[in-house]
Amino acid sequence: MKLLTQEVDRIVGRALEEDLGWEDITTRSIVPPNARGKAVIVAKRRGVLAGVDVAVAVFRRLDPDLSVDILTTDGVWVEPGTLLLRIEGRLPGILAGERVALNFLQRLSGIATATARYVQAVAGTKVRIIDTRKTTPGLRVLEKYAVRIAGGFNHRFNLSDGVLIKDNHLAALRSLEVGLRQAIQMAKENVPHGMRVQVEVETAEEAEEAAAAGADALLLDNMALPDMRRVAGRLRGKVILEASGGITLETVRAVAETGVDLISVGALTHSSPALDISMDLEE
Amino acid sequence: MKLLTQEVDRIVGRALEEDLGWEDITTRSIVPPNARGKAVIVAKRRGVLAGVDVAVAVFRRLDPDLSVDILTTDGVWVEPGTLLLRIEGRLPGILAGERVALNFLQRLSGIATATARYVQAVAGTKVRIIDTRKTTPGLRVLEKYAVRIAGGFNHRFNLSDGVLIKDNHLAALRSLEVGLRQAIQMAKENVPHGMRVQVEVETAEEAEEAAAAGADALLLDNMALPDMRRVAGRLRGKVILEASGGITLETVRAVAETGVDLISVGALTHSSPALDISMDLEE
Amino acid sequence: MKLLTQEVDRIVGRALEEDLGWEDITTRSIVPPNARGKAVIVAKRRGVLAGVDVAVAVFRRLDPDLSVDILTTDGVWVEPGTLLLRIEGRLPGILAGERVALNFLQRLSGIATATARYVQAVAGTKVRIIDTRKTTPGLRVLEKYAVRIAGGFNHRFNLSDGVLIKDNHLAALRSLEVGLRQAIQMAKENVPHGMRVQVEVETAEEAEEAAAAGADALLLDNMALPDMRRVAGRLRGKVILEASGGITLETVRAVAETGVDLISVGALTHSSPALDISMDLEE
Amino acid sequence: MKLLTQEVDRIVGRALEEDLGWEDITTRSIVPPNARGKAVIVAKRRGVLAGVDVAVAVFRRLDPDLSVDILTTDGVWVEPGTLLLRIEGRLPGILAGERVALNFLQRLSGIATATARYVQAVAGTKVRIIDTRKTTPGLRVLEKYAVRIAGGFNHRFNLSDGVLIKDNHLAALRSLEVGLRQAIQMAKENVPHGMRVQVEVETAEEAEEAAAAGADALLLDNMALPDMRRVAGRLRGKVILEASGGITLETVRAVAETGVDLISVGALTHSSPALDISMDLEE
Amino acid sequence: MKLLTQEVDRIVGRALEEDLGWEDITTRSIVPPNARGKAVIVAKRRGVLAGVDVAVAVFRRLDPDLSVDILTTDGVWVEPGTLLLRIEGRLPGILAGERVALNFLQRLSGIATATARYVQAVAGTKVRIIDTRKTTPGLRVLEKYAVRIAGGFNHRFNLSDGVLIKDNHLAALRSLEVGLRQAIQMAKENVPHGMRVQVEVETAEEAEEAAAAGADALLLDNMALPDMRRVAGRLRGKVILEASGGITLETVRAVAETGVDLISVGALTHSSPALDISMDLEE
Amino acid sequence: MKLLTQEVDRIVGRALEEDLGWEDITTRSIVPPNARGKAVIVAKRRGVLAGVDVAVAVFRRLDPDLSVDILTTDGVWVEPGTLLLRIEGRLPGILAGERVALNFLQRLSGIATATARYVQAVAGTKVRIIDTRKTTPGLRVLEKYAVRIAGGFNHRFNLSDGVLIKDNHLAALRSLEVGLRQAIQMAKENVPHGMRVQVEVETAEEAEEAAAAGADALLLDNMALPDMRRVAGRLRGKVILEASGGITLETVRAVAETGVDLISVGALTHSSPALDISMDLEE
Repeated sequence: MKLLTQEVDRIVGRALEEDLGWEDITTRSIVPPNARGKAVIVAKRRGVLAGVDVAVAVFRRLDPDLSVDILTTDGVWVEPGTLLLRIEGRLPGILAGERVALNFLQRLSGIATATARYVQAVAGTKVRIIDTRKTTPGLRVLEKYAVRIAGGFNHRFNLSDGVLIKDNHLAALRSLEVGLRQAIQMAKENVPHGMRVQVEVETAEEAEEAAAAGADALLLDNMALPDMRRVAGRLRGKVILEASGGITLETVRAVAETGVDLISVGALTHSSPALDISMDLEE
Repeated sequence: MKLLTQEVDRIVGRALEEDLGWEDITTRSIVPPNARGKAVIVAKRRGVLAGVDVAVAVFRRLDPDLSVDILTTDGVWVEPGTLLLRIEGRLPGILAGERVALNFLQRLSGIATATARYVQAVAGTKVRIIDTRKTTPGLRVLEKYAVRIAGGFNHRFNLSDGVLIKDNHLAALRSLEVGLRQAIQMAKENVPHGMRVQVEVETAEEAEEAAAAGADALLLDNMALPDMRRVAGRLRGKVILEASGGITLETVRAVAETGVDLISVGALTHSSPALDISMDLEE
Repeated sequence: MKLLTQEVDRIVGRALEEDLGWEDITTRSIVPPNARGKAVIVAKRRGVLAGVDVAVAVFRRLDPDLSVDILTTDGVWVEPGTLLLRIEGRLPGILAGERVALNFLQRLSGIATATARYVQAVAGTKVRIIDTRKTTPGLRVLEKYAVRIAGGFNHRFNLSDGVLIKDNHLAALRSLEVGLRQAIQMAKENVPHGMRVQVEVETAEEAEEAAAAGADALLLDNMALPDMRRVAGRLRGKVILEASGGITLETVRAVAETGVDLISVGALTHSSPALDISMDLEE
Repeated sequence: MKLLTQEVDRIVGRALEEDLGWEDITTRSIVPPNARGKAVIVAKRRGVLAGVDVAVAVFRRLDPDLSVDILTTDGVWVEPGTLLLRIEGRLPGILAGERVALNFLQRLSGIATATARYVQAVAGTKVRIIDTRKTTPGLRVLEKYAVRIAGGFNHRFNLSDGVLIKDNHLAALRSLEVGLRQAIQMAKENVPHGMRVQVEVETAEEAEEAAAAGADALLLDNMALPDMRRVAGRLRGKVILEASGGITLETVRAVAETGVDLISVGALTHSSPALDISMDLEE
Repeated sequence: MKLLTQEVDRIVGRALEEDLGWEDITTRSIVPPNARGKAVIVAKRRGVLAGVDVAVAVFRRLDPDLSVDILTTDGVWVEPGTLLLRIEGRLPGILAGERVALNFLQRLSGIATATARYVQAVAGTKVRIIDTRKTTPGLRVLEKYAVRIAGGFNHRFNLSDGVLIKDNHLAALRSLEVGLRQAIQMAKENVPHGMRVQVEVETAEEAEEAAAAGADALLLDNMALPDMRRVAGRLRGKVILEASGGITLETVRAVAETGVDLISVGALTHSSPALDISMDLEE
Repeated sequence: MKLLTQEVDRIVGRALEEDLGWEDITTRSIVPPNARGKAVIVAKRRGVLAGVDVAVAVFRRLDPDLSVDILTTDGVWVEPGTLLLRIEGRLPGILAGERVALNFLQRLSGIATATARYVQAVAGTKVRIIDTRKTTPGLRVLEKYAVRIAGGFNHRFNLSDGVLIKDNHLAALRSLEVGLRQAIQMAKENVPHGMRVQVEVETAEEAEEAAAAGADALLLDNMALPDMRRVAGRLRGKVILEASGGITLETVRAVAETGVDLISVGALTHSSPALDISMDLEE
């Protein structure tokens, strides 16, 4: 994540502003400003770690003199008790950074852990687990990184770097008397040449119509398994096929076996519980 | 949330920058810029609504001419199918705002729904369900609002508006040969007169020692129910008692019945799944 | 450009800060603050207009009470003397906005004019004239709009919304003993499914090698016309072909006739002279 | 440019945000994050270099560990092949910074080159070539630096650090029945004592009237050479004389020889073509 | 102050962030969000009013629906009891804005009042009372406005819009073996033609030397009255003379009568006590 | 102030932008960019020093290579001639930073000096001198620090970290037919448990009523000494008592002897004259 310095800096800076307010009044009242200490950040549950660079940035921003050692790298499965980071230096920075550093680590590791479970569930197939735009406002760059570090892949980042004609686009166009075929045509004519045109479809018929009209990729929305299988049978290799809509850890394998190329899971980023991680000061 | 215009504006602006990038390339390619339409935002699952003002701000910011009607207000239990907002006007703004508006609504309503369930679980007791600082970086002001609108209460907002001497503070002080009593004394001498001094304790003995030293409030961390009951029996009414640590919807009633004043639940903000909400364009 | 309000606002705000400093000292010294006037913005040379919305934003930001009428729309060829905008209201805002509004209009119309000339030069072929990332730092969103409004098309906006393996990537990979074929393979495996993989090549042999390795598009860099013709003969319709490198208004037609799909012209944005436009106060 | 760190930082940061988006997806897909390399930036055409400090800032911001050596300093005439900068370190930062660094160098060197040509054209006279406020929005501080490094001088930076009563001011005042003399009087009474009052005039008569009314400097707008000569003959040494309006490299010498003190050339900043400069990775 | 909207907006926004934090917890706890009320802002001491536009901006920013009437305009002498502004609308915005609005009004009116007293003290002479750069960091644009509205004049705004060779410049140059005459020469050669060159001198001899070397203006630093008189006798009308250094309301008249043109008073902005102003809610 | 880096950075950055504009034109014109020098910052009057870290930040930001030594620490009484800081390095940064560094030091030391005088005046009593929200917009975090370093204490920082029911709240509530008792009740029910509820009262009767209603602290506004004494006699030790309103250095001792706990003095931050401090370049 080295090249993201600028964006990660802004996110970390904003998070610290939010959590520090104008000062850490507890620490200022009881801890001498130059007293020194050591702390470790440690996993409390099993999961995949993500976000250590962000945690490092939190502590460094509070006190550039803190020494922060990374003991475990992103993408690794950790067990309860695994040591993740060691921080050493002046106590006020260590104490003030604890909560913000943990908030990032817990959320990103929660996403990485969920992603890794989906990836494991489709192991052996050629299917990619991908994310969606259903991310936490303001944290997308970090959350999409957490998906990737755990073996998932990214869908488009935002509305400007991928083309997806969705149900609501098609509904809008119908009211303007523009059909699916024409919509696809217009998109192909107007978007930059480096982008493929993907279309959301709900039935096998729509899938075939879209493919015939030149769609480069389809999003099969909430389609029944037999329909997906039929679509995959006819179109796999010709257009890219993404299954989407309410797919869970229980159902993902069956979806993967229909022959689609991609399975997108919104819950990775909108509903993954945090991974339990804590900081302990060494006495 | 009227007085928060400035902060909500910044959060919404940042979220739109993130999701729009430099333009909504799909919509620009296929939808005429002045074509008009109507859409409704509708609940897909049962839950407590939170964030309608934020959703309104999203659409208004994209296109100040959009008319956005609030059909359901924050804090209300909604059922699958309940209409939440109606948006009418130029299509590009409606289509571009969909995802960001839903991302806010789903997350905040997820938090509100979880909060309301905890509040219901302790109904009839005098206990308050409160939040923690385990919030999503950058969204604390919204997430704490979602807790409140659902009947919960807020703990301190950040490190500068509340005093809480935590386990790591005490560990740090022990290594400087400063004990619990002295720490409480120092805090009482140095913090602004409008703030109470709260201390985290792990045993009934520590609780009594802290109370004797003048603590105004205690955080009983992961304490067994009988210990909590004993502490409450002796200290209730003299100091404010907050139970904390791994309390779930299953255990919260029993904790409430020990006689504590407050129960804080980090999971409200760090692990609540999103409430399913979607937008439908009317044809 | 309605959906770009936020970004255009930032650019306009920054431009006004830069040009206003702390006050318009000349106007404050000699013009009564509430004196009113009218002005027109008028073309002084023939060209394609671009940027009227930006000019409007400049005046509105200085004084929301100014009435600004758009007399000519973006994309239109204007002649010396064509009236573009009329502004009416308090004089200080009109006078303070003149230079910034003209700076935007002149630069964007200069780009639009150059683009339109290239588009005319290839009229009748199927070639698209496209822009590059050789834009003015900070103004890319406006400059790419100016290209589009004049009949050109956009290449990728930035490094995150398009994939282009350039000569320097290939040089870097060679020093790591990674060849062209392998580079293309890696890119296809790692980029989001909505993006095509484009590769820069310098010879017909490289072009064929890249196409065979699965490249979706090629950038033919500074290739001689016969070589381009040969590449187009073999690959047109299979991969997207972009000609690039030192193409001028004199040579563009010949390049278009080789059979490539796209011609990119960096000079559109890095070297187009401004179109002469001025503001006259009506007495 | 050492003291401008803050402003240059903002401009560079904004340019990188614009060009990087959320990540350099090509490089991330095919180049190992810690692979190292060397590159040189080299001139492709003859011209005057400007902006090396900005290019250095671009690379340093992307990766503080990059070593960047300045091989040629600003203000020097370079030939095709002259090496300007050498960059060494991790490849991702080198590759990601190329375009932005070149965009700055090409534009600023284009301005410096044009300026130097005008300065050469008036060599031997006492005339100063000066810039205008017709600069690229957002880049004025850099563009005015490029003028200066090439032997030109700066006119006022913005509306708050210089007083210039322009034709539109005078038109506005005429409609309020305020004449030239009175306008100059008001300005002299109201502006800070450290600023001179300059007035735009179109005829020799106006020039004399303005001088008589106490103007400290005149801008002779689009005046014919004989008129300029007449004005200079009478007023040179008493008021500062600036010639302006459509002066080209062909006409500038003749203008200089009329005896004016300053010649301002808007085209330096609004229409100079970029100087061709490129980056080559060493294999 | 109409054209300063952008800068005043930023200052007001920052002040509200600082004073509001995340919410007005008192008002939220006890006042219904839609309850309405009226308030007046009223002077408690005699003084010159400054800042009403800023106060209006404070309330409007908190609640755009508040109606705010200006009852007294900037620059007017007010008496205890004079009504300045009336605010009407929802109570939360009125209550939350009180302190910030008053902080601006009190400080700016304090400066205006002090300025007016100095201006009165030199009434009948031709001397201008001017301010300095000894302003409150972040508020200069407002404080210099307060000086002006009360009859004072502004010195340069900052280091980029005026030239003043100060004692420390001269000391620096002496250590480089550059003398006063040469320094003035260099400045005249290098600064934009619209700026005068002013030099700080401490003795009558230095004053004459600087004038002879071509200085356009002198700052007579802490000079004794007889020396000032001597300098004024010789140089008045030839160079602009500014007296500076420890001048008080008691001594300013005598200084004015020496014949200098300008008297600068740092205390106007660094040490003026606030004017007492308060807000009363109407019941 | 180590943990405040982010906020102090923003304040310092803003102050330098304001004072530098686009360049230090005087210094650029006459001082070679790499010439070196030394300067000392020295007190000219007796007072308590505050702000040295801010002054250091000013110089470091202008030129990170400057060496800045702190010779006197914040909170110390200094005499005329006491050396505070020594700066050494390139002259342009030293010269450009002088005014901004002094503006911070003078203002903060002015506040510290006034605070120390009030603290001395109540020496021997148990009363704390506290500040108010009557601070300079934008500088509160620094001004409250200056109060603390001089022996004072802080009241709440802003509207979100302390509860104070003021006269205008009570007036508003009366018009809604809500009395003092009920207001206090509502506040106690709604504010976070870590905050005390303080109420402004004007008479001894109100004081007793508020205490009886459960107020944790009272602000005795402009109360006569005998009334304060009576209130203190009855309520001291039961509720926290703050005296406020027009208390001066002359009257503060008498107020302290009434038995109140806290005395708040708005003038500390809104009307303290600057402490005279200057910078001298060593030749």
